[in-house]
Order: sequence, then structure tokens, then C-alpha cells
Amino acid sequence: METFSDGVFAIDITLLTFQLKAPGLKAATSNHTLALALFQQWPDYIAYFISFATIFIIWLNHHRMYNVIQRSDVRFMFYNGLLLLLVSIIPFTTSLLADYIDTPANQLSSGLYMLLFAGISWALFIMWNYATDNYRLLKRPAADVRIQNVRSSLLISTITYTIAAGVAVLVPFLSILMGLAIVFYLSRLKYHRAKVV
Amino acid sequence: METFSDGVFAIDITLLTFQLKAPGLKAATSNHTLALALFQQWPDYIAYFISFATIFIIWLNHHRMYNVIQRSDVRFMFYNGLLLLLVSIIPFTTSLLADYIDTPANQLSSGLYMLLFAGISWALFIMWNYATDNYRLLKRPAADVRIQNVRSSLLISTITYTIAAGVAVLVPFLSILMGLAIVFYLSRLKYHRAKVV
Amino acid sequence: METFSDGVFAIDITLLTFQLKAPGLKAATSNHTLALALFQQWPDYIAYFISFATIFIIWLNHHRMYNVIQRSDVRFMFYNGLLLLLVSIIPFTTSLLADYIDTPANQLSSGLYMLLFAGISWALFIMWNYATDNYRLLKRPAADVRIQNVRSSLLISTITYTIAAGVAVLVPFLSILMGLAIVFYLSRLKYHRAKVV
Amino acid sequence: METFSDGVFAIDITLLTFQLKAPGLKAATSNHTLALALFQQWPDYIAYFISFATIFIIWLNHHRMYNVIQRSDVRFMFYNGLLLLLVSIIPFTTSLLADYIDTPANQLSSGLYMLLFAGISWALFIMWNYATDNYRLLKRPAADVRIQNVRSSLLISTITYTIAAGVAVLVPFLSILMGLAIVFYLSRLKYHRAKVV
Repeated sequence: METFSDGVFAIDITLLTFQLKAPGLKAATSNHTLALALFQQWPDYIAYFISFATIFIIWLNHHRMYNVIQRSDVRFMFYNGLLLLLVSIIPFTTSLLADYIDTPANQLSSGLYMLLFAGISWALFIMWNYATDNYRLLKRPAADVRIQNVRSSLLISTITYTIAAGVAVLVPFLSILMGLAIVFYLSRLKYHRAKVV
Repeated sequence: METFSDGVFAIDITLLTFQLKAPGLKAATSNHTLALALFQQWPDYIAYFISFATIFIIWLNHHRMYNVIQRSDVRFMFYNGLLLLLVSIIPFTTSLLADYIDTPANQLSSGLYMLLFAGISWALFIMWNYATDNYRLLKRPAADVRIQNVRSSLLISTITYTIAAGVAVLVPFLSILMGLAIVFYLSRLKYHRAKVV
Repeated sequence: METFSDGVFAIDITLLTFQLKAPGLKAATSNHTLALALFQQWPDYIAYFISFATIFIIWLNHHRMYNVIQRSDVRFMFYNGLLLLLVSIIPFTTSLLADYIDTPANQLSSGLYMLLFAGISWALFIMWNYATDNYRLLKRPAADVRIQNVRSSLLISTITYTIAAGVAVLVPFLSILMGLAIVFYLSRLKYHRAKVV
Repeated sequence: METFSDGVFAIDITLLTFQLKAPGLKAATSNHTLALALFQQWPDYIAYFISFATIFIIWLNHHRMYNVIQRSDVRFMFYNGLLLLLVSIIPFTTSLLADYIDTPANQLSSGLYMLLFAGISWALFIMWNYATDNYRLLKRPAADVRIQNVRSSLLISTITYTIAAGVAVLVPFLSILMGLAIVFYLSRLKYHRAKVV
């Protein structure tokens, strides 16, 4: 199951590349016009970077979670399928953000972008809660696993993403900064007391 | 062999994402026009969701099947290749469904969509029959494997998909609901009495 | 190394799907016009099927080869990289074939298509020769490995693909039939006397 | 972690294929016009080949590096994520190079192309330095690992790529030849004294 999920994560993170396209300029181009055209694609670069970093961190947390989980059941697989479904939509909201961040529709596009991340963070939270409830699917001695700590951290990131989606209505760029902050926050989350990366 | 198949499944499930495209609106867009354009893409979302869920469930059954199979031979690999060939066509029928579900050609597009799923379910049925006939390729003690149960379940899902393809000629949307019901049915299929997900 | 190669094979075989596109019909379509448009795409289906079957068989032979190879060196990795480079070009020649098989340029497109397969078969032949020369990289007791048998079989398929490329200049469709025959021939190739699929 | 990275490498190397497209000719084509159209795509073939070879060699070095690394920590994963981010941009700079190598903008496009490779080489250098500093993350007895040798080689290739990016301003084609030379240089780099490919 983890191999299959890893595959989906790896493909989604590379599919983002399609967002980056060589500008289609007419015949008589100079270095100057190409530089200008590349510069005008800045929303693509920002959206690409944030989505890449976010998928990478979500994969990292998913990987750490599976490190301490021993068993699986039909319901947990359903939750995992839901997570993969949401992660697979990231390239779509990324192109929405990149195409509309410099238009009057930037509030809706950045709001949806953050809302999807909130949903993904919430799916991770549900997975972790289900797996650790009564130590249901845990692998190692439960005492070593930071159950409560991870629970509250995933809840915090879900709430912050939701707030960021709300902030997008007022100041789209601020919501994007909040998204980057959560990526940094989630990168430091530890699921196990022992040294397992 | 299973790693290679897993790769093909993982790639096909993420290739579906290409169905979802940011609407190409002209310069002066507002949040309202973007919301409307996104809303009008509803056939894409439905087709994406059903195909994603179906590929996920087919992968799950393929994975469970390989859990109880020990050996392989040239003919079984041929059947597996056939399954992968059919699964790889899903993104094609998905875009057919999404593009034509709200046109007068929705009967043909949803019919073909269901017919492909019938073929895939039939390929799984053939694989299982061949592997379990005289316990040909089985791994664990055959007594623990639910041979008959899985055989009839895969036959039922094949027949139901075929009926759904017929229903598509009369009521396309009903056939899609039948497809979702089979996904739920196949998600609960057990290949082994012991707790193996 | 084999995992990486398997990944490339799995991705190439699914990238072929992009050859299959839902026909872009205008608004007022009926089931009849859609069926006609789908039918007129027959070159796409043929090209898709042959390329899928060929990549699958090449992967199978590559997998069987790695089953009996124990070591690796820089030169063998170079040959393997060459094989992957050639396999990655298959989606390109496939779209060439599909786009031009029903035009006067079908001789060139089917000729190039077969020539690439000849090159791939030749790369497999070179890999096998290098690995088995003086039992250089072999895993199991060399007596059990069908060195000579595989060598001549890969040489035969290389020559037949080259002839098929030549036949394409006279009768393009005959060359395609020859390609299918080689796929069948290569599917039965055994690298080891013991039962290893 | 290595499996996930391998997946990203395998997908990026095959995504390059999208650079190669069958020429879109009008109806009445002959073998001659198709051959001409294919010939005129030569920048695509060159760019495809160099990018393929470079990704393959970067993967090879990444793979060899992981062969001698035992542990991992958050900071090393961050460096690895940076490497994957840069590698994922290769298909973008490749299409930039292919689209503009025969226009007056070839200096900028080939310069950016080489600059990205310099960045990737630098990321490998940073990873290796961090992992081997005080034998921080090493697996095998440090005496067997060619720490200094690899350090200076990666530094040399980073500097050469940067010079190649500068040379691109004067003679774009010369910078591309330099890129090929570095690929050959990096293919022979040994991370361990023992025979590990």
C-alpha cells in the first residue's frame, strides 16, 4: 500500500512540471523579449514552488505515519484513498492559482487552493486519529509514539489552512505566505520519539 | 511483476488529473465568472471521481489477488498484461464520458465507459479462475483462500457492469450510479479468510 | 537499477495513452456522429495496441535478463541507459505511425517505427552478450542459463525487425504484422532452464 | 526516501518525451515532406538526448551516494527535496532550449539550461558534504568511502557547468558540448573503493 501511495505522490509532484511551459513567442525573438516573457510567467513559478514543497511535506508526513503503523483495514485504506484523491487534485488547483493570481479572480483561485490543502491536512488528521485510537493499527510500543502531539499538530495545520482560505478573500498573497509557514511547521513534525526520519 | 503493475496503476490513476483543466477565460475575469466556469465543468469532476475510485478498487483487488498467489507462468503474465492494457484505456473513456455526458451522444460515451469496466472485471475474473483452478498458482493453504466466493463476486460485478452498459442506452445517469455501487461492492471483497487487507 | 528501469518502462507504457484522445466534435453531436468519429481513429487504436504489447514484452525480457544477472558495472549501466533511451522514444514513433499510417507518408512512418524496435532488440542483444561473455555478470550457475539460445533469439528478432523496416517501404501493413509476430516470439523466450517467469 | 526519489527521477526522464512530437502536417503529405519536417525538428532531438543523458547520470550519482549513506535527518531530506525540485525543472529548460536554440534568443535559453545543471550539481555537492562531514550519515567504514575525491569532483562539475552557462553567451553550441563532457565525467565517478555500481 505504501509503495502504491509513494508512486502517486511521486507522479503528482512531477506532473506539476506541466505548469511550466516555454513561452510561445513568434519568429523574430531576441534574448531580451524571451527574458521578458519568462519574467511575466512569475505566477507559474510561485505556484509551482509552493505546490512542490507542499506535496513533498505531505508525502514526508504520510511516510512518517506509515513508519509507526503496523496493520491496515478496509476503512484505513478508504481514508488513504481519500488522501490520494485530494493530493491528485493539487495540479488542478495549482494551475487555477497560477492562471488567475494576477486577475480580479485571484480571491477565488487562492481560496480554493488553500481549501484543498485544508482538506488534505484534515485527511491526514483523520487517518492518524483512526490508526491511533485505542492503539488500533500501531506498530511499535505505543509509549514511544507521539500520538497526542501529532494529533494536535495536524489539527492546528488543518485550522490554519482553513483560516488561510478565509484570508484569501481579503488578501490573497497573505494566504499564500500562511501556506508556506504551514509547510515549514509540518516539516518538523515528529511521529516517534526515537530517531526515525 | 507486481511492482511493475503497481506502477502502471499509480500512473493511470494520476493521469486522470489531465481531465481537470483550469478554465481558459479571457482577461477581465471576476471571481463570479470563474466560479461559473468552474461550476460548468461538473461532468469533468464526476467522471474524474468515478474513474479514480474505480482504478483504486481494481488496484486493491489486484493487490489482494497477488497476496494469495505464489507462482506465475507465461499465460498468467499474458492475462495480467491484458488487464493492464484495459486499465490504461480508462483515461480515454473517462475523457469520452466527461466530454459527451451533457450532449446527445451521452448514451454511447457512458455505454463504452461501462463496457470497459465490464472488460476489466472480466479480466480479473479470468486471472482468478486460472490461478485457482486446481490450486495452480496459489501461495497459502488453499483451504484459507475464498476461491468460490471471489469467483462468483467477480462474475457478478462483470455481469452488473455489462447490464450497466446496456442501461446506459436508456438512462445514462442510472448506469453511472450502478458503476459506483459496484465500486462499493468490490471494495469489500475478501480473498483470504485471515486478516489480510 | 532494476527498480528505476521498471519505473521508466511503466511510465512509457502508460504515456502511450496520450495517443488516445476523445474526438473534439462540435456542439450538436449525436451518438451516430460520435461513433463515426471514434471509428475513424482506428490507426490510433492499432498503433496503441502494438506499442503497448511491444513495451510489455521488452519489459518482460529485461526483467528475465535481470533475474539471472548478479553484478553490474559502468559499461552495463551505459547499455541499460541506451535501452531506456530507445524505449522512451516509442511514444514518439507511435504517434508518427498513428498520424501518418493512412497518408502517403505511411512508408516512412512505419519504417521508422520498426527501425526503433530493431534498435531496442539490438540493445537487448548487446546487453545479454556483454553480461554472459565469460559469464561476466551472471548470478546463477551458468550451466542453467540458456546463454546461446537467448543470444540467437535476440539476434533473430533484431534481424526480423530490420527486415520489417525494409518491408515497410513496400507494404507498410505487412511490416506491422511482422512486428506482432516478433512480440509473440519474444514472449516465449526463456533465459533460465528452471521455472522462472 | 530513495524509492520516492527514484520515482521522481524515472518520471522526469520519461516526461522529456513530450518534447518529441509528431509534426502536424496537412493532408496531402508524402514521405519526402514528412522526412523534411522530421529533420527540421533537430533541436528537439539534441535537447532530448542531452537532458536524458544528464538526468540518467544525476540519478546514477544520487543512487551511488545513497549506497554509502546509512542515516538521514530533517536537514538532509530538505537538501534532497531541493535536488528533486531542481531535477523536476529540467523538462522546462529542455523545452526552452529546443524552442529557442535556432533563434536569436539561443544565448539566454542555453545559458539557463546550463545554469540549472550547475544548480543540480551544486545540490549534489552540498548533500555529499553534509552527509560526510564528520562521517555524519555514513553507512560503511569511512575509510572505504572516497569522500575527498567525490567532493572535489562534484565541485569541479559545478564550476564547469557555471562556466558553460557563461560560455553560452558567446558560443551556445560550445556550452552544450561542455555539458556532454561533464555527463561523461560524472558517469565515471566512484563513491566507494569496493566494486559498487
